Amino acid sequence: MARRIGDAGLDAIIVSDLVNVRYLTGFTGSNGAVLVHAGPDRDGDRIATDGRYTTQVAEQAPGLTALIERDCPPALIRATGSGTVAVEGHVITVDAYRRLADLAETTGVTLTTATDEVEALRIAKDDGEVEFITSACRIGDAALAALVGRGAIAAGRTERQVARDLEWEMFALGAESIAFETIVAAGASSAVPHHRPTDAVLAVGDLVKIDFGAVSGGYHSDMTRTFVLGEPAAWQSEIHAIVLTAQRAGREALEVGADLAGIDSAARDVIAEAGYGDYYVHGLGHGVGLRIHEAPGIGAAASGTLPDGATVTVEPGIYLPGRGGVRIEDTLVVTDAGPTSLTTTSRALRVL
Amino acid sequence: MARRIGDAGLDAIIVSDLVNVRYLTGFTGSNGAVLVHAGPDRDGDRIATDGRYTTQVAEQAPGLTALIERDCPPALIRATGSGTVAVEGHVITVDAYRRLADLAETTGVTLTTATDEVEALRIAKDDGEVEFITSACRIGDAALAALVGRGAIAAGRTERQVARDLEWEMFALGAESIAFETIVAAGASSAVPHHRPTDAVLAVGDLVKIDFGAVSGGYHSDMTRTFVLGEPAAWQSEIHAIVLTAQRAGREALEVGADLAGIDSAARDVIAEAGYGDYYVHGLGHGVGLRIHEAPGIGAAASGTLPDGATVTVEPGIYLPGRGGVRIEDTLVVTDAGPTSLTTTSRALRVL
Repeated sequence: MARRIGDAGLDAIIVSDLVNVRYLTGFTGSNGAVLVHAGPDRDGDRIATDGRYTTQVAEQAPGLTALIERDCPPALIRATGSGTVAVEGHVITVDAYRRLADLAETTGVTLTTATDEVEALRIAKDDGEVEFITSACRIGDAALAALVGRGAIAAGRTERQVARDLEWEMFALGAESIAFETIVAAGASSAVPHHRPTDAVLAVGDLVKIDFGAVSGGYHSDMTRTFVLGEPAAWQSEIHAIVLTAQRAGREALEVGADLAGIDSAARDVIAEAGYGDYYVHGLGHGVGLRIHEAPGIGAAASGTLPDGATVTVEPGIYLPGRGGVRIEDTLVVTDAGPTSLTTTSRALRVL
Repeated sequence: MARRIGDAGLDAIIVSDLVNVRYLTGFTGSNGAVLVHAGPDRDGDRIATDGRYTTQVAEQAPGLTALIERDCPPALIRATGSGTVAVEGHVITVDAYRRLADLAETTGVTLTTATDEVEALRIAKDDGEVEFITSACRIGDAALAALVGRGAIAAGRTERQVARDLEWEMFALGAESIAFETIVAAGASSAVPHHRPTDAVLAVGDLVKIDFGAVSGGYHSDMTRTFVLGEPAAWQSEIHAIVLTAQRAGREALEVGADLAGIDSAARDVIAEAGYGDYYVHGLGHGVGLRIHEAPGIGAAASGTLPDGATVTVEPGIYLPGRGGVRIEDTLVVTDAGPTSLTTTSRALRVL
């Protein structure tokens, strides 16, 4: 981080995105910011948080001097003294920036913005991070297996019941929280990519799309599987098979250095060639880490390439409005040895 | 809203805070923005969201023409044509504002910012909103009663188990989600105002502080109660009694038109006079609604007065580091008839 700051021509950066603060310092409170200087000397670095977190910040970030003030970036501006200091332009609001700029003027600091400096570091995961994501993926796999095993995904139950049961399994298996609001979408609702579970009752003949994840050590997992209640209709088997082929093509395209838009089209072309291109309305995947959605985005308009150590999802889908939809999604880690799926539940169309 | 926009000298405002979008339109997707014009004519108003929400936006905001584009504020700038248009300065980032300003220049729009325009409307709740908050509060009351009733808060159990059980009860009682990560803090950890539940085991002699809430129709509840396992020590009874007296004073100070800082000191003075002023380290309360924390903030540094229809918390506490702490919190609605507590669980020190 310190080298990036210097390379950007800055004397220091104030990081206030809470996930970035956690990444850099380990501090997990709900209010905080950190001041990091260019160069090897860490003496001037500071973390700021408010009085609720005095004890916690000392435990989680023991090497950093803490400033206890509710309004953190101004406290850090006052602590910098002088020089060119950036705040995160993609994080800080216009109003907050204006107040900081006024303050900086009185303290001799030249205020500027920097974008995605910490996010760029976060893309390539180290072994410890991959371990947490793997652990979160294992919780997801085991929770879904438990749910299927005890017949909890069945006609007569509601989407909401299935979602709550799955979340409960994840907590019972040690999830510290759920990765996002669990999606259980049955019947025609399975054609809504991000359907919220309702009291709608699952019925024989329904596709049931379940998209969910767990959090372990702050890191997320993300997986989607689509089931069918009773013997599948021909159209259900057909779109599931196409999505499965597309998803495999997407996974196999995950090579270090691969063009991100090219990965997207590896999967998208399969769906388009099968005649369902208009029914696949989102990107192929996204990075997963301390946030459920982070860089790199894998989509038709993405630029750049896939770095070593990235953890990403591959999640194509076909959504037929009023009828139903299929999505298959895994979380994978990409290294020079190739992609490894950290979610391991069978991708076959499971008849329940 | 349309009148506020005109009064602010604007032709239109682009609202992109998702809670504000929901408040104005009913749309609950995870990406969206709305363009609202000054004056009575609603024909030019638009909502923007991406392809995941095409169906949902038509259902939830049927009266509004929807633009389906991933990057919503730019789509709305292009839809405005001309005039002075504000974005939310407390919401939009510096980077996003710069991109929008560049775009606005090419389309003949004069871009500016406005702050808290929708938040100001959100403070005074209408009957439908109070009904949702009441429903969320009832779920919280009933969930805690169920937990106590079945002996789930007991020596030998972990903070995390108690928290998960309480959340499970809320879901079983119809909560659509939990209001925030449930706080269960036992023993010395009860002195940490915002402690996250751990695997620490509850023991006889512990104060157990539980701060939690439910969500109903998008609206939140917020309540804290502090229990004691086994007969309370003298110091535990003492600080509980002081906090209870302070909390009553705070509740009784909730009059329409009352000075916000004055409400805070009504409670704070009780704690200070009892000699514990240094151990009460946060404000008295906050507004509750579509967000768990919203305007008005009730604290020593607050300015302004309490409006008719506000729903707020009153939550003083005493925290003795290394020993334990007590907080008592209710969610109340304030009208000309006086304050009404929507959370109704007994505030007495309950011995378990």
